[in-house]
Parts: sequence; C-alpha cells; structure tokens
Amino acid sequence: MAAPSEEEGAVGPRCHHRSTAMLDVPFLPFCAFLGTLGLLCVAMVGTWCQHWRGGFSLDGSSRTFNWHPVLMVTGLVVLYGAAALVYRIPHTWSGPKLPWKVLHGSLALGAFVLTVLGLAAVFRFHNSQGTPNMYSLHSWMGLATVLLFSCQWAAGLGAFLLPWAPAWLRVLYKPIHVFFGSTILMLSVASCASGINEKLFFSLKNGTMQYKLLPAEAVFANTLGLLILIFGVLVVAALARPSWKRPDSDSPDSRQ
Amino acid sequence: MAAPSEEEGAVGPRCHHRSTAMLDVPFLPFCAFLGTLGLLCVAMVGTWCQHWRGGFSLDGSSRTFNWHPVLMVTGLVVLYGAAALVYRIPHTWSGPKLPWKVLHGSLALGAFVLTVLGLAAVFRFHNSQGTPNMYSLHSWMGLATVLLFSCQWAAGLGAFLLPWAPAWLRVLYKPIHVFFGSTILMLSVASCASGINEKLFFSLKNGTMQYKLLPAEAVFANTLGLLILIFGVLVVAALARPSWKRPDSDSPDSRQ
Repeated sequence: MAAPSEEEGAVGPRCHHRSTAMLDVPFLPFCAFLGTLGLLCVAMVGTWCQHWRGGFSLDGSSRTFNWHPVLMVTGLVVLYGAAALVYRIPHTWSGPKLPWKVLHGSLALGAFVLTVLGLAAVFRFHNSQGTPNMYSLHSWMGLATVLLFSCQWAAGLGAFLLPWAPAWLRVLYKPIHVFFGSTILMLSVASCASGINEKLFFSLKNGTMQYKLLPAEAVFANTLGLLILIFGVLVVAALARPSWKRPDSDSPDSRQ
Repeated sequence: MAAPSEEEGAVGPRCHHRSTAMLDVPFLPFCAFLGTLGLLCVAMVGTWCQHWRGGFSLDGSSRTFNWHPVLMVTGLVVLYGAAALVYRIPHTWSGPKLPWKVLHGSLALGAFVLTVLGLAAVFRFHNSQGTPNMYSLHSWMGLATVLLFSCQWAAGLGAFLLPWAPAWLRVLYKPIHVFFGSTILMLSVASCASGINEKLFFSLKNGTMQYKLLPAEAVFANTLGLLILIFGVLVVAALARPSWKRPDSDSPDSRQ
C-alpha cells in the first residue's frame, strides 16, 4: 500500500533526518548479503537437481531437464540481479562511464546466454519425450520474460553502448529501460516460483513421496522458492531506493 | 536492469524535458485503464470458475474451492491495488488527509476480508476432501503474503490512523510501509500465477482435455494469469513513478 503521510507540521526536519537515518543501510554490505543469498539460491537449485532429481546429462532425459532450473535461476535471477545493480555501486558515479556500461552489458549478456541454454534444455527434454512445448502458464510467463529481456538487452546496446545513438533517444529510452529492468526481474522470479511448484507436482506423486505429504525434497525446494522471491524483492527494492541512485541521474540541470 | 546514464554534457535540460514529456502519462486516464484491466481480471476468473469448473457452492466440494481464486484475485490483487493507489490521486495532495486515510484503510480492509474468505474456501475444501493443507510452494508463498498483509494493515492502522502514534514513529515507519506495500502486491501476483498454473495441472488431465493439449480453458486461464501479472506490474510501476507521488512526501523542509 502507498503510505499515508504524517500530519502536516507535526514533524520537523531534524526528527525526519534522525528517524530516516535509523533506516539507512550502506549499499555495499547490503550487496554482500544479496550476493550470499544469490549464491545460496544457485547452490540450492543445483543440490535439488543433483541430490533428488538424478543429476545432469545431455541425453534428452529428465537429467537434461535438470539444467533448466539451474540455468534459469543462475542466469535470469542471480546474474541478472548483479547486472541490474551495477549502477548502484557508488564507484560508478564518478570517472569514465564506459567501463561500467561494458560491465553492465556483459553481465546482462552472460545472464542472457545462460537463459537461452536453460530454454534449450527444456525444449530438448520435451522434444525427446514427445511432450508439447509452451502450453503451461509457467511457460507463457517464462517465454514472455525472456523475450522482454532480449528486447531490453538489444535496445540497451543500441541506445547506450553504441556511440551513434542521439542524446534525445537516450533520454527518452532511459526511464523505459529502468522500468523494464525491474519488471523483467519480477516476472522472472514469478516464473521461477511457478516452475518449482509445477516440477514438484510432476515429480512427487508416488507413495510416501507425494508432494502433499511434504517430504524433505518438498521442504527444500519450497524453501528455495521463497529465497528466490526474497532475492528478487530485495534487488527491486535496492533499484528503487532513492539514496542508492546516482545523485545526478534524474536531474537535467546537473548535465549542463 | 538499471539504466546507463547518457554521456555527460551531451543533453541539455530543454532536450531532457522535451524527451521526458513524451513519456508523460496523466494519472487519471492511466487509472481508468488499470481499473478496466482489474475488472477484466475479476470477470475472467469468475467466468473460468463458473463456465469450466462447475460454479460456486459452500458444500466443501470443488465448487467451494472455486471461491478461492475469485476472492484472492478480487481482494489481494485488484482491491489491494486500488487501496495502494489512493495517495497517487492528485486530489489527496491538498485539504484534510483524514478522509483519504480512511478510504485507503477501508479499501485495504475490504481486500483483507476477501482474502481471509478466500483462504477459508480452500481450507474448507481441503478439510472436507481429506487433503493436507499448506504443502505446496504456492500455499507457502500465498500464506506468507497474507501474513505480511495482515501485519501491514495492523501496523498502518496503529501508526497512521490512530491519533496517539508519535510523529517520529510515523516518519520511521512510512518507508517500511511503502516498501512492503509494493512487495506484498508482487508476492500476491506471483502467488496467483503459481496457483492458476497448479489448478490447471490438477483439472486438465483427462483425454482431449489435458493441459498439454492446450484446450480453450487452458488458453483462457493462461491469458488471465498474464493479465494479472500485467496489472500487478503496472500498479507497482505507478507507485514508484516519482511524478505521481505527493510533491512533498519525502521532503522534510516542506513540513516546516
């Protein structure tokens, strides 16, 4: 919910500053926490597939499918989140911007490559099993997310990294790029949650291993789903936090 | 992704203003669009349950379950979104705040009541069928979302509507309330997507009506899922848009 404002005149600037200072979290320790959480998500999705789902292969079996959750969580959630946060590092606010642009674009490209490999894994699994592709809501959401991400990457390259984009185009496109940056991560995280849920219903349906009996695998993968949601929410919150944005990023005057 | 900044010195304030003016959308027409989209989501979830899933009853059968998606989408997505956007209406920025606070709190309370009824429907269905509660990732996410929402509502009442909350507490709590406002909506939308996906796998599994053969019901409910995601993303984007926030909302000076 949008918050109500406090009564006018009741709060002076000193009280405001003192109270908001209590909520100030430095960016870099927050980032270290977020990095640990992201690595934990990658380790957990790998452990799930290795320990409970039979490990990995390229033979078109369910062990080929197992690459799908690992690559999507690593690429479209964790590496994507790292790419998104590059411009929140205070060191990027001064000096030449090109190296940071290249880092941002490269991390996003790495995320995109892992994502495409993750899609290839599930298509190869479906095709070798004779299962249709692209029928579930999870697949529709996931593919929409990846298509948006590919447009975002290509448009970002064209507008911000290639030197011939006119300045007015960059100014026009920047808020759109920022908006879709957070949106794609939200969609990605929602896709992961629906995918983990779906996979558990597919896999846990026999005897004492039914999903509804909540065996250890279900608790583990449900916990992974919640951690991915927390990671996504924290990255989107970090992107939206005004005090972590480049000080001049929305001020036309500072560009004069 | 966070956007790269344009090259320093390349863009003057006139160019910036002209370019960003092209992206300016007035709040009220946007709200009308969002309201239409929200009503469409409610109509579609009702149509899904009525036309394909057998309608509604209170007898503990799957027709009792059908209240669950209708009440969750209506309460925890659409009415919640309306509550969240109250303070973005320009009329709320001047004059007495109390009526708007009461409207915000009442809409949120209405959303909460529908949500609790929606949970009661699924618990009654499970209990009468002998199915365990709270085992899927969807249920974990959903319950976490509802618990956060109940804390949010109670804390909002205590801090902003009851007269005895000290001013420093309101200042301290406001950014937390705003953060969880968007977060709860994101979690709610992700829960809806995983729930629709799960319900379709449960319901469409026989003969020519299998989910993977994409019958009309699957296309309809997948489309509903995508529209709910779009609604959620647009509400969160509207909440984050600086030019739609109360002009003085984060400025301590303006409260002097």
